[in-house]
Amino acid sequence: KDMNKKAPVALRINPDVDAKTHAKITTGKTENKFGIAQDEAEMLYDFVCKHPYLKPRGFSMHIGSQLTELAPFRQAFEKMAELAQNIRAKGLKLESIDIGGGLGVTYHDETPPDLKTYAGLVRDNIAPLGTQIILEPGRFLVASAGILLTKVIFVKKGESRRYLILDAGMNDLMRPALYDAWHTIRPVDNGADRAISTYDIVGPVCETGDTFATGRPLPEMNPGDLAAIMTGGAYGFVMASNYNTRPLPAEVLVDGNRFAIVRPREEIEDIIDKEIVPDWL
Amino acid sequence: KDMNKKAPVALRINPDVDAKTHAKITTGKTENKFGIAQDEAEMLYDFVCKHPYLKPRGFSMHIGSQLTELAPFRQAFEKMAELAQNIRAKGLKLESIDIGGGLGVTYHDETPPDLKTYAGLVRDNIAPLGTQIILEPGRFLVASAGILLTKVIFVKKGESRRYLILDAGMNDLMRPALYDAWHTIRPVDNGADRAISTYDIVGPVCETGDTFATGRPLPEMNPGDLAAIMTGGAYGFVMASNYNTRPLPAEVLVDGNRFAIVRPREEIEDIIDKEIVPDWL
Repeated sequence: KDMNKKAPVALRINPDVDAKTHAKITTGKTENKFGIAQDEAEMLYDFVCKHPYLKPRGFSMHIGSQLTELAPFRQAFEKMAELAQNIRAKGLKLESIDIGGGLGVTYHDETPPDLKTYAGLVRDNIAPLGTQIILEPGRFLVASAGILLTKVIFVKKGESRRYLILDAGMNDLMRPALYDAWHTIRPVDNGADRAISTYDIVGPVCETGDTFATGRPLPEMNPGDLAAIMTGGAYGFVMASNYNTRPLPAEVLVDGNRFAIVRPREEIEDIIDKEIVPDWL
Repeated sequence: KDMNKKAPVALRINPDVDAKTHAKITTGKTENKFGIAQDEAEMLYDFVCKHPYLKPRGFSMHIGSQLTELAPFRQAFEKMAELAQNIRAKGLKLESIDIGGGLGVTYHDETPPDLKTYAGLVRDNIAPLGTQIILEPGRFLVASAGILLTKVIFVKKGESRRYLILDAGMNDLMRPALYDAWHTIRPVDNGADRAISTYDIVGPVCETGDTFATGRPLPEMNPGDLAAIMTGGAYGFVMASNYNTRPLPAEVLVDGNRFAIVRPREEIEDIIDKEIVPDWL
């Protein structure tokens, strides 16, 4: 009002469907913090439309991440369509629907949703509304574009297990510690000519949560060998921390046979230099 | 050898005791990646003693973090003492024993080990060996020295719950998401004169794991009110990340009525400026 502008507004709906994914990344159930219920959305949208300084754009939803089943999408799309029809029946304008993301990828043996079937759901439920359609398939686009390249520090023969100790740790890739996530790990040299051994694959960080995989069969690896932790392009580097005073790794962009360091490796001084000791200490 | 120096060596023992703490931070069981077994330690210590370029110092152990029971310490100390006696019986020199850390603190209703009883265990089992004794009680010293100061963004009345949305998120304090940890949360103004309401206390990050507490009774809070997340001095800021492109908070050191910003608040440019776009892109 002070700026004499109309602020564009979209409302995030919580369609109350079970996305059947990890509890920490399901976001479309009533008990999740995200979005508002359908009844409330209709009332609020009406309020936005009548408000002199608000401009209605539409609705958004996002029911969770790493979804491998399509049924939750169908349920949510049907609810969005119903909401849109109710809004239109009131004579209110609806420009845009954001149907969120959530399309899963293959970390291990997951079968991601079939894209044609997914598109069919969008075509049947959302497209007939004639609005702009916004999608947010972030993980689906970038997860498999990233790997965490790491070096074997040591192979430790414990009493009951054999540990492959990498120079990457949970601070570099939190997903196994945080979501009990599986990442495929493979020797960079392929290793097809070597015998298979079974490893617990761990990092050098000071807690047992610093474990990438347990009981994982792998061609025998030795100190200095390079390993690739696959499918690290999403929720990988963006969640990395300096835990254990560990400088962050470099980020390298590869395009065919070109590469560039797009974020330089941190040095331990980069971490320590951020701290300022006050005069009076 | 090349430098004509004797490298001091201590061996970390895995005493194979159950620390009875969270699985991710128990570190002294045979199936954990840390340390070596007692038999192996005796052989290796003998090797170190006889090696021309190695200098034996002693042994270390660390059975886990946030321990609230003393029995695991007693078991581990007894094993260390037995190992030390075996080493001495072979005529080998033993200067130092690092008995690790692990002393728990009160996050909620835990009773930390009684320090006098703990000291008694050290006196009875380790002190008679006459070595230097090293302790690592990091969390015990610093956990309660830190709080995460945060502001209420919004109070959301969901269908089934009331959400207190803070401007701090899981990226600032990972412990609730990572270890299902309890942190006491209180209004900075005390709030003793206000009615109690029950909140799910969450951050603004895009996943359901971004939850500090569920069903927590608290004096009624409003947007702009300050809240303190207590006992954040250990495994707090050191595990913080830029997840969701969130700049890290400032670190403020307080000593009586003096204070100093010991690490400036990050700006979003600090994050983005680290990325370098290659010429060919």
